[in-house]
Amino acid sequence: MTSITSSSYAVHFNKNAYTLLNEHLSKANYSKIFILVDENTHNCCLAPFMSEIHGDYNFEVIEIEAGEINKNIATCTQVWEVLSELDADRKSLMINVGGGVVTDLGGFVASTFKRGIDFINVPTTLLAMVDASVGGKTGVDLGSLKNQVGVINQPEMVLVVSSFLRTLEKRQMQSGFAEMLKHGLIKDKNYWNELKALDSLEAIDQLIYHSVTIKNEVVLQDPTEQNIRKILNYGHTLGHAVESYYLDHPTYDLLLHGEAIAIGMILEGYISHKLTGLPKEELADIKATFLSNYPKVSFNTEDIEAILKLLKFDKKNSHGNINFVLLNAIGTPEIDVKVAQELLEESFAYYKD
Amino acid sequence: MTSITSSSYAVHFNKNAYTLLNEHLSKANYSKIFILVDENTHNCCLAPFMSEIHGDYNFEVIEIEAGEINKNIATCTQVWEVLSELDADRKSLMINVGGGVVTDLGGFVASTFKRGIDFINVPTTLLAMVDASVGGKTGVDLGSLKNQVGVINQPEMVLVVSSFLRTLEKRQMQSGFAEMLKHGLIKDKNYWNELKALDSLEAIDQLIYHSVTIKNEVVLQDPTEQNIRKILNYGHTLGHAVESYYLDHPTYDLLLHGEAIAIGMILEGYISHKLTGLPKEELADIKATFLSNYPKVSFNTEDIEAILKLLKFDKKNSHGNINFVLLNAIGTPEIDVKVAQELLEESFAYYKD
Repeated sequence: MTSITSSSYAVHFNKNAYTLLNEHLSKANYSKIFILVDENTHNCCLAPFMSEIHGDYNFEVIEIEAGEINKNIATCTQVWEVLSELDADRKSLMINVGGGVVTDLGGFVASTFKRGIDFINVPTTLLAMVDASVGGKTGVDLGSLKNQVGVINQPEMVLVVSSFLRTLEKRQMQSGFAEMLKHGLIKDKNYWNELKALDSLEAIDQLIYHSVTIKNEVVLQDPTEQNIRKILNYGHTLGHAVESYYLDHPTYDLLLHGEAIAIGMILEGYISHKLTGLPKEELADIKATFLSNYPKVSFNTEDIEAILKLLKFDKKNSHGNINFVLLNAIGTPEIDVKVAQELLEESFAYYKD
Repeated sequence: MTSITSSSYAVHFNKNAYTLLNEHLSKANYSKIFILVDENTHNCCLAPFMSEIHGDYNFEVIEIEAGEINKNIATCTQVWEVLSELDADRKSLMINVGGGVVTDLGGFVASTFKRGIDFINVPTTLLAMVDASVGGKTGVDLGSLKNQVGVINQPEMVLVVSSFLRTLEKRQMQSGFAEMLKHGLIKDKNYWNELKALDSLEAIDQLIYHSVTIKNEVVLQDPTEQNIRKILNYGHTLGHAVESYYLDHPTYDLLLHGEAIAIGMILEGYISHKLTGLPKEELADIKATFLSNYPKVSFNTEDIEAILKLLKFDKKNSHGNINFVLLNAIGTPEIDVKVAQELLEESFAYYKD
């Protein structure tokens, strides 16, 4: 597959990705190469990845604990310290091999170590391939508040190797699939219909490619998220709040990012129907599609109240206003819509109904 | 005094600084303005600063503990958390009123909060006025390793108000003066001679202006420190190692940044004499000038060994090589010089002699 060119770098696919990585390494003369993994990718992905690298480089592997709960400043501090101890310098390279936790955190650590060293992302989950692979967002959570600390900074390249998905659990695949469905909802009704009709996520290469293309087009138009890039946040305003709330309640079942934004997309679909003209049938389609792909979560009144309180931390807010991305129709988003409190509560009632 | 224009912003001086700040605030429509201070600037500088701001804005003051020892990630985390609690959003502004600790740390916190909010620096020490005011370096220490974590990012504007210096202790003034002497050494022999001949640091406005101009010219030529910007590190390779070593040994007397780099400039002067042609008389001039302005520190063999070990963490290093900035003569620097271990040890002998 042809590489997809983003602002200052490109996303390369499968065999071609390794060829271009090897070319880059042989030219760049890095002093040392650090590979950041978590426990899972250390086991499943590191060996196949390393076997594709030809040449005699100075490698060090750094492992962090897996899971969103570890995407925080304490883990960054550990990695910064290990880099220092292992003599990383400004000409070192960091390769982040993992899901969104590894690529978001690794990108932030690299962007801030000695005021910035080169990094390459190798997303190994479907979510990271279709979502974190373009856009240059790096960062970590602050307590349970998602991505409150970070920078926008671009990697040298991104390598999407779909064979890594073979090791991924079905539930993790579904989590990534939610972002792909979102790409359909905000930009491409045909793609939405195509994804809905899928029997399985096996032959997924072309779909990943299409999702990366959609996201990349949006990001290139508005790298710093002043306007159109906000459409990528569809489902994320309420979805992030739900996700944060679950992160904060370890006694609840774990909710994956895609599962949380699937809920957010139903809730914000309802609000879109009420405020921005999303037709009733399309709303019903959205609800049915997500509920057939993702477990239905039950929220009590106390949960909903607490979740709505978390909205004030949303990064799209300004001047005390919460700004939603809503849909006029499937494929046609509208940004910067303010929503009354009652409607937010109603949307949960619609979800539960 | 005319403003000095840097890459994307300008440094404004005295009365004019307040006029332009007020203009900026009245235009920018910030949702909230956070003023970061430490204990000292809270007492000495905040009230006079606030009295110059006209208009009805939503202010919050955040205080951190003073001192280099607090320029770390733990303090950043506190400030990020307070910003979250006080509903800072992407349209908030942070004004850093203080010395280098406040402007370096505040710049980093602002550059990373929700992936970056606007900030303005108001340096209140001579060191921060002549050194931290241009260049966009933000960051914090990692343990005792100076500025290991940070980003390069530019403020909206920098305000240099020399009346803040009236509250500064003589020793702190001297610390900033060391960076000004460095500007002479690396770029302007006449300026070096002028500074040497000063009787007092009272009428210092024009000299600050000249120092900011020198630094700004260098930074504009090479914002990312690929080549010429490295000359600003003269005295800092060994100076930072000495400073880190002292930070790590709280039982030793505190050594200020300027005092540490004054030592570094003598040490690297000696190495310059041996390697890059700095004339004997100029070396003697450098040593005499710094020893007449700064206390002589005594190092034992163990100290020196430990200090030299710290050199491996220097940010200019690459591929295991320590890169020094040396002088061919006063006013004429040379970058990327490698120095043998024996010569480093000899330089300490020369300092002690």
